[in-house]
Amino acid sequence: MGSTGSIGCSALDVIRHANADGGDRFEVVALTAGSNAEKLAEQALECRPQIAVIADESQLPVLRERLSGSGIEAAAGRVAVTEAATRPARVLAAIVGAAGLESTLAAVQAGNDVAIANKESVVCGGRLILEEARKAGVNVLPVDSEHSAIHQCLGDGRQLESLTITASGGPFRTSTVDQMRTASPEAAAAHPNWAMGIKNSIDSATLMNKALELIEAAYLFDVAAERIDVIIHPQSIIHGMAHFTDGSVIAQLGSPDMRTPISYALGWPDRVETTVDRLDLVRLGKLDFEPVDSQKFPAVALAREAFAAGPGATTVLNCANEAAVSAFIAGQCGFLDISWVVKEVLSRFLSGNMAGLACSSLEEIGLLDRYARSAAEDVLKRAPDGGAEGRTLG
Amino acid sequence: MGSTGSIGCSALDVIRHANADGGDRFEVVALTAGSNAEKLAEQALECRPQIAVIADESQLPVLRERLSGSGIEAAAGRVAVTEAATRPARVLAAIVGAAGLESTLAAVQAGNDVAIANKESVVCGGRLILEEARKAGVNVLPVDSEHSAIHQCLGDGRQLESLTITASGGPFRTSTVDQMRTASPEAAAAHPNWAMGIKNSIDSATLMNKALELIEAAYLFDVAAERIDVIIHPQSIIHGMAHFTDGSVIAQLGSPDMRTPISYALGWPDRVETTVDRLDLVRLGKLDFEPVDSQKFPAVALAREAFAAGPGATTVLNCANEAAVSAFIAGQCGFLDISWVVKEVLSRFLSGNMAGLACSSLEEIGLLDRYARSAAEDVLKRAPDGGAEGRTLG
Repeated sequence: MGSTGSIGCSALDVIRHANADGGDRFEVVALTAGSNAEKLAEQALECRPQIAVIADESQLPVLRERLSGSGIEAAAGRVAVTEAATRPARVLAAIVGAAGLESTLAAVQAGNDVAIANKESVVCGGRLILEEARKAGVNVLPVDSEHSAIHQCLGDGRQLESLTITASGGPFRTSTVDQMRTASPEAAAAHPNWAMGIKNSIDSATLMNKALELIEAAYLFDVAAERIDVIIHPQSIIHGMAHFTDGSVIAQLGSPDMRTPISYALGWPDRVETTVDRLDLVRLGKLDFEPVDSQKFPAVALAREAFAAGPGATTVLNCANEAAVSAFIAGQCGFLDISWVVKEVLSRFLSGNMAGLACSSLEEIGLLDRYARSAAEDVLKRAPDGGAEGRTLG
Repeated sequence: MGSTGSIGCSALDVIRHANADGGDRFEVVALTAGSNAEKLAEQALECRPQIAVIADESQLPVLRERLSGSGIEAAAGRVAVTEAATRPARVLAAIVGAAGLESTLAAVQAGNDVAIANKESVVCGGRLILEEARKAGVNVLPVDSEHSAIHQCLGDGRQLESLTITASGGPFRTSTVDQMRTASPEAAAAHPNWAMGIKNSIDSATLMNKALELIEAAYLFDVAAERIDVIIHPQSIIHGMAHFTDGSVIAQLGSPDMRTPISYALGWPDRVETTVDRLDLVRLGKLDFEPVDSQKFPAVALAREAFAAGPGATTVLNCANEAAVSAFIAGQCGFLDISWVVKEVLSRFLSGNMAGLACSSLEEIGLLDRYARSAAEDVLKRAPDGGAEGRTLG
């Protein structure tokens, strides 16, 4: 799901390598994409799924034309995307944003293992997905590098004391608040270590990605948010750690390349050979660690606040962030406004009459999504200077 | 086995804490020591084993007197030590040097799991111990921090590419060769991070400890020596790593405190809660890595040479080193002479008619032990200036 995005392309690269020399380690059953029909068709012609689905129905003619005579079925629309997710296979859920939740849930309910690259799905519907996965007896395998690391380090999870996820610190780790206030979307999207989509890159500039990952880890591994640490590690070599009661810490390290966690989630319990650059600590010379500056980056503290308040609040936090990032990309607000909008929307939600919503169905999550987006718009509209300037911080 | 040494004392501390508040996580079945009867008696009176054994028979009267009326049996001599190792229990094999091999082997043959803190046993008798362990269906659990780390990181061992063990670099990491040539035993024993016995401390100044650990890891994990890397990591926080075919590296980290690996080997497959200082990477700030300087520290290359030549050569390497370290402590040779003696003895062995010895019994190992010690003496005697000066390097 989401094969033309950054994760989808890396996944196909992993599969290409694993199947090289005529191997058949992986068979691709279905590919779905949002609107890039040309690229989807190209991928389909290479890896021969049963079906290729484009969410944007206006692109169906293009897809049909490119796939004509190939024997690969072409389909379009949200329902077709969801249907594709229910075909028997391990589903790589890599649709960005809350939009990925419906197909992820359908996959789990159909009895498919899910390799989950969509942190927003977990943040909004984590309890729902995990509850359904438990009922269906399927595995939910993390793809985010931090969660993949923890999955690799946890063992049987007994005698666990705490977890740590690392953050590169993003492009503004050493910037001043004034520099951040006037940062362009291009500057914010320039991640130092990882190649990612623009939404995720901007999230990693605000550290909202770590906020979402903190919540994701809490749901996935059933560990309270206060037992999950976030530390800055500029080289992005140690991705995650599990701390045990005997003083041992198990960490997963590797070059910052998504093909490693993707291959892990696709192949688990086996590991799949990749061509990822091998780690060479001597060549790196050193690994650095710093605390998170919560004045410059209020997102992690907001995540702890939201997690403590319950799944409704984590959904609102995520959807307010999606709205604010879109506004920032569209030039409708400044970089610092992103966290400010999230903070304002969250605070409004927590003092309002929807705060008790159990968030136990797609409908309730949809309701909270709309609430958060409209509240975010409202917050931006009422802002004294109409956007494009950081208004407050922390 | 070896309860009054550094490892033994730490193990009793782990047990003391685990059994605190009236808990009975561990029961001590037997304690054995070399010659410190006073301390052995004190330990026995605290943790109430069935039997306390002193290897040095001249100390039996002291032990008997201290334990009289306690209900704890007192015994002495090599045979009694070995008998104690066969009582049903997990045996912590912490007798320093090749002397530990006999009781370790007896424990395994009696069907006891062995927590092996005695790297010399594995270097000399690794194949023998592991073969007997396989026959008896018992577990051999490493206690050395590096091997404990690897044991914790290996998982099911599939799709493994290589292993890394780390070295602090010892007290002479930044010293010149001239400084090393005139180093006293006290300076050589001053380990920067770990509290250890004197023999192990001097081994870590020559990096012979890493040489022995490389061989130990190759035997314990059945991985060829050329697939095991040694890197310098002055902070001793990452202890060992397993590198997999997908580019993932799993590492074990922790404060340099032997209570963590000891508790792991005593408690496995459970972890035992310890009071070891918890790791705080932000407080540490950074971790450094360097290559091994093989000119200053020829030991690691010697180990690779010995491993490639077979178990006879690794036994000779170990026993020549024990003899050379004793000579250095006694003021009979200089610091640089330790590696030089080992190199000379190994080279003499490999070109002699004993090189083909299969090393498949205690008798053969004993023969090689005597050969190596006498060859070491001979090398020291024939040295142009009679010892106490580094003669050659690398």
